[in-house]
Amino acid sequence: MRIRIINPTITTTWEQDARHAYETAASPGTEISIRSLEFGTATVESRRDVALVAPGVVAAAREAEADGADAIIVDCMLEPGLQAAREVVTVPVVGPAGAAMHLAATLGHAFSVLAIADNRRPLYAEIARRHGLGPRLCSVRTLGIPVMALDDDADATLAAAVVQATAAHREDGADVIIPGCTGLAGRAGSIAAGLREHGLELTVVDPPSAAVRTAETLVALGLSHSPRTYPRRAAKAVHEPGGAGAPA
Amino acid sequence: MRIRIINPTITTTWEQDARHAYETAASPGTEISIRSLEFGTATVESRRDVALVAPGVVAAAREAEADGADAIIVDCMLEPGLQAAREVVTVPVVGPAGAAMHLAATLGHAFSVLAIADNRRPLYAEIARRHGLGPRLCSVRTLGIPVMALDDDADATLAAAVVQATAAHREDGADVIIPGCTGLAGRAGSIAAGLREHGLELTVVDPPSAAVRTAETLVALGLSHSPRTYPRRAAKAVHEPGGAGAPA
Amino acid sequence: MRIRIINPTITTTWEQDARHAYETAASPGTEISIRSLEFGTATVESRRDVALVAPGVVAAAREAEADGADAIIVDCMLEPGLQAAREVVTVPVVGPAGAAMHLAATLGHAFSVLAIADNRRPLYAEIARRHGLGPRLCSVRTLGIPVMALDDDADATLAAAVVQATAAHREDGADVIIPGCTGLAGRAGSIAAGLREHGLELTVVDPPSAAVRTAETLVALGLSHSPRTYPRRAAKAVHEPGGAGAPA
Amino acid sequence: MRIRIINPTITTTWEQDARHAYETAASPGTEISIRSLEFGTATVESRRDVALVAPGVVAAAREAEADGADAIIVDCMLEPGLQAAREVVTVPVVGPAGAAMHLAATLGHAFSVLAIADNRRPLYAEIARRHGLGPRLCSVRTLGIPVMALDDDADATLAAAVVQATAAHREDGADVIIPGCTGLAGRAGSIAAGLREHGLELTVVDPPSAAVRTAETLVALGLSHSPRTYPRRAAKAVHEPGGAGAPA
Amino acid sequence: MRIRIINPTITTTWEQDARHAYETAASPGTEISIRSLEFGTATVESRRDVALVAPGVVAAAREAEADGADAIIVDCMLEPGLQAAREVVTVPVVGPAGAAMHLAATLGHAFSVLAIADNRRPLYAEIARRHGLGPRLCSVRTLGIPVMALDDDADATLAAAVVQATAAHREDGADVIIPGCTGLAGRAGSIAAGLREHGLELTVVDPPSAAVRTAETLVALGLSHSPRTYPRRAAKAVHEPGGAGAPA
Amino acid sequence: MRIRIINPTITTTWEQDARHAYETAASPGTEISIRSLEFGTATVESRRDVALVAPGVVAAAREAEADGADAIIVDCMLEPGLQAAREVVTVPVVGPAGAAMHLAATLGHAFSVLAIADNRRPLYAEIARRHGLGPRLCSVRTLGIPVMALDDDADATLAAAVVQATAAHREDGADVIIPGCTGLAGRAGSIAAGLREHGLELTVVDPPSAAVRTAETLVALGLSHSPRTYPRRAAKAVHEPGGAGAPA
Repeated sequence: MRIRIINPTITTTWEQDARHAYETAASPGTEISIRSLEFGTATVESRRDVALVAPGVVAAAREAEADGADAIIVDCMLEPGLQAAREVVTVPVVGPAGAAMHLAATLGHAFSVLAIADNRRPLYAEIARRHGLGPRLCSVRTLGIPVMALDDDADATLAAAVVQATAAHREDGADVIIPGCTGLAGRAGSIAAGLREHGLELTVVDPPSAAVRTAETLVALGLSHSPRTYPRRAAKAVHEPGGAGAPA
Repeated sequence: MRIRIINPTITTTWEQDARHAYETAASPGTEISIRSLEFGTATVESRRDVALVAPGVVAAAREAEADGADAIIVDCMLEPGLQAAREVVTVPVVGPAGAAMHLAATLGHAFSVLAIADNRRPLYAEIARRHGLGPRLCSVRTLGIPVMALDDDADATLAAAVVQATAAHREDGADVIIPGCTGLAGRAGSIAAGLREHGLELTVVDPPSAAVRTAETLVALGLSHSPRTYPRRAAKAVHEPGGAGAPA
Repeated sequence: MRIRIINPTITTTWEQDARHAYETAASPGTEISIRSLEFGTATVESRRDVALVAPGVVAAAREAEADGADAIIVDCMLEPGLQAAREVVTVPVVGPAGAAMHLAATLGHAFSVLAIADNRRPLYAEIARRHGLGPRLCSVRTLGIPVMALDDDADATLAAAVVQATAAHREDGADVIIPGCTGLAGRAGSIAAGLREHGLELTVVDPPSAAVRTAETLVALGLSHSPRTYPRRAAKAVHEPGGAGAPA
Repeated sequence: MRIRIINPTITTTWEQDARHAYETAASPGTEISIRSLEFGTATVESRRDVALVAPGVVAAAREAEADGADAIIVDCMLEPGLQAAREVVTVPVVGPAGAAMHLAATLGHAFSVLAIADNRRPLYAEIARRHGLGPRLCSVRTLGIPVMALDDDADATLAAAVVQATAAHREDGADVIIPGCTGLAGRAGSIAAGLREHGLELTVVDPPSAAVRTAETLVALGLSHSPRTYPRRAAKAVHEPGGAGAPA
Repeated sequence: MRIRIINPTITTTWEQDARHAYETAASPGTEISIRSLEFGTATVESRRDVALVAPGVVAAAREAEADGADAIIVDCMLEPGLQAAREVVTVPVVGPAGAAMHLAATLGHAFSVLAIADNRRPLYAEIARRHGLGPRLCSVRTLGIPVMALDDDADATLAAAVVQATAAHREDGADVIIPGCTGLAGRAGSIAAGLREHGLELTVVDPPSAAVRTAETLVALGLSHSPRTYPRRAAKAVHEPGGAGAPA
Repeated sequence: MRIRIINPTITTTWEQDARHAYETAASPGTEISIRSLEFGTATVESRRDVALVAPGVVAAAREAEADGADAIIVDCMLEPGLQAAREVVTVPVVGPAGAAMHLAATLGHAFSVLAIADNRRPLYAEIARRHGLGPRLCSVRTLGIPVMALDDDADATLAAAVVQATAAHREDGADVIIPGCTGLAGRAGSIAAGLREHGLELTVVDPPSAAVRTAETLVALGLSHSPRTYPRRAAKAVHEPGGAGAPA
């Protein structure tokens, strides 16, 4: 099985880490490839960024299908272009937020998302509502650490995640934790272990892992998004008035 | 007051009719200008199209504010790029779907949207949910007329709208009607009159009119979208890996 | 355009201030008139008061239409008799709570109401639910200042409003603020400015302003409440058993 | 135990039948008294009527408590003045719609209301939502018989009720039926029997019976509505500007 | 009228106190009998216990109907086997949680449950949702006293209940309190009195009392659960593969 | 990976077909074992049956964990004992209804369940609500074929499924189909193919396949249900009063 990861940014330096994270979580035999966007922004942190990179995601999805990918993952909790991409390919397109939230909803009665910064709150609330799981999201908690510092001091990041996850349980009623920021990707186990050291057993769901396993499940079962909810669309030219354009 | 209409397509031939529709609905003294996209698609009919034109809408919103617009309207029921645009300007950005649905919700207990084609159903349901009005949308009904024919035979279009609005009331429980397709823009009064001829009094809300009046209200009251829900974002370069890009 | 403000109390001394507030918020050319009730109570602070003044509001609505009003506003956040009045006139009847809440819902993802006293909490929750916006109301906060003192010390009132609006954002997640008590009418701008001085940008919606602009919009677009949701009712005698009564 | 029935109209000719219906449903030893309004309308069929009779209901509730009533029932499915009355007395105030809907919700997964006329639909939907049971109300069906004819031809009325209850089950999914019109008061058993003859076992809840038994339960258990949700209010003068008024 | 209380445990030593509590709350003339399970567990504190005792409840319900009971109450806030029992008897089967929650919902806008221990939180949330009253349950608060100590020091238990009920009102917005643990059965009045001493008027609903009165109401009105929601089921053998089994 | 299928009945003749279905859907390397109940009923068709077999499921879950199973599936759309079983084991316990409904919710905006008989409707509505997906279930449609005939005439069963799935899309708005009856297990692909022949592309999710893949995902990611939502419980004796009992 071949799964194409779309990094919805132009920051190709992230590719190696991301591929490693997905390969670690994937089943044996699943072949992971990753593509960054040709046109886009360096990071995706806002609705503006979501808008700016979505056309690139649509094009990358079409390219992935042409390359023979069996499934596609848009590697970002804000899932830019995901629904649009589903209209242009027949293979399943999966996002880490939806995959993690649906899995979390089956494992406990409420979940919290750990985010980088306060301005993510309305975004995560929108995403939970979009997936029909708004009432299950009981809080969004922020680490209070600059994004750039996440990698510099992995221990401090982990410690902050444990503190916020504990508060999410104690104060907000969360029984499942979803680490929502990239700097915590692949570290669900460490967070759960950190919580256990403090006497708290919580289920921690890693979004990239949830996404790759959900994608595998869909491929294995011959399933994809409904062509009635996502009517198929052919390539469409994007061009300037009076000029020519490339199909996307 | 200066309101900039963003036509989120590259089809400049629609500009004159659209400007006329907005000028007719606006208050005396409101100055309407309209801009089509420099880069985009010819029409907006799907989530794919929404993705492809959103960057153009963001750029056009920034340009509108630079041009001194007091408010911005994204002239499309699918409201492409609307939330992203709100992050890059401080003047209010309004969409016809949200404006019409909120107005409809104050006037009756449930509303229906008249759409061009069946594939719009999930899109309108998503839009109503996004605006927090999902339970008030009782149905989406389609005219069953090809888009291109809408203009060719205005009488047949109107007749179809009256038939579907009647069914929306009788079968779905709608007390307010929102004509959702562009071909019916500015014809809410005619639909209401057609219904009245058949003995049915229904409130019919024209989305462009609702949008322009809502925009005027926000400007007059010194209001705009909350910078907490829509944190302000500066221009950001969109470029290819290793290359340069234009700010958007 | 002529808009009739119904002051749903018998306290005629409020008329001048109220008319001034509405005239300030209205469009140029809109003519504001105001009528207090002939029969009713001195203030409206409870469900009991709502019941006691509603017949007077119905009669006043009928009188307003007979006087040639193009729209009617019931000047009270508890909107006494509003739905009943809609059954007896064909011109639009608007309330400040509904108008402000719908506008707030388009500008941010959650709003709080600032109220005079704790006993208003269930009332505002009921009003938000009645308008279908229950989930958007994240809290009702009270100023903790006696009503009578509101006018005596305008600065203290404003300061209390800024304190509570800040808490509504920080603790309850509100991104939009609706000052719900009469003593704050017309002061949305001052509250927003006070918040800005403390480094907090929040959108503050003034209910009377929202109401008058919504009424103007409805009149301009030829819209009114649906006669299907609000079936028209003729005058009906209210009398004692065996006696005669006046139509209301 | 003494229960006061408030007939929220001035039509005293209904008193005898109503008292009989409540006495039949009450426990042995419960003493039923009934009072019509001094001031009000002949029937209650709309929001306008609800507004016009509510002050009379508030006054009648206060009188009932002064007369030593242990509980009060407002005898009308539209429950005029019920919430206001709860603010002026400490004894429980119960309505037939709320009592029947809560009982119905414990007996089956969805219920329908049989109404006199189509214009009751939005009213019953509002009442179910007000009681927090909106999702349990699956339809409102109308008998299509003029109110006046209900008494004239009891057999036809019953037959129509059986037809509509059957349709409510087959087409709308109702497992419990609430006869909502006065002409069907006390006939739940007959409707259930009529359904059984047609091979359909449905639970049919009589609203006056549900109300009187709920009132008895509250009195027996020493319970009443929460003074926090319904803050107690003293008598308040209702008068004209500059004149005197009677307390209500 | 004969009401059978099913104690869904094998702990027969509780029978006398339980019967006393139900007899105290019942109407004069109601005959209360109580049966513990033949097979089951000593207490019911978890979903596991609910599963283990449910077959015993089904058998006990069948036995109760054969004994001539007019109604059945499953005496446990977790209501084990209640819905299953409704499929095997035609007399009404009532639970204390559902009865108390529906009554509470008619008396105030939100209620809290006082529970023994933290692990009851998800259980009560599930029960409120199952009864369609999820949004009305504003919190579950725990006494922080070991179950065994509840009887040992009734004063301390009562004091803890008053403290938690106060917090439920002040911090969670509860206007009605439901004492959910067995140790508080029959003490609603004492809790209300304790609150009153601290200046707080709250409505406190005793679940066993609510259950017995609801059961009496159903019997008196000839009502039971809908055979469409709960299709009737004959006795069914429960046995091992290849062996014989007793009907249940 | 070892997955234990619990057949929650005593009908061991079904074991071979069930194991085959799960093995077909599982990943290579997954070892499927199946156990029927020692004590229970022959089929599970009602809430009564759910109650009667739940203790057996709890015991079987404990046995499965002792046998070294990495995950457990309760092979029945009614998911008897599933939540109870989660309290007694630490390995994940998965049900086909929840797994299929969550997967369906990610693939389209609404789904329908195909059921054997009308009396399953309230059961499936309860299950969807329990999983927090109530609003996504748009209908339950029944095949109208006796259970026993399902196997006798597989072609007729398939044809009936295609007819009902088509109606679920056309009349109820379903974009995803979940075949809910055992006779259709493993035939999702055939139903989808049958629909395609009639020109309708719908996504059809097979519940056993969804369950086994979800179980595999949880095991692979080291996840299980939250011990906070499902507090762990030791073995508990189930016995008669005064007698001894076996731990369950």
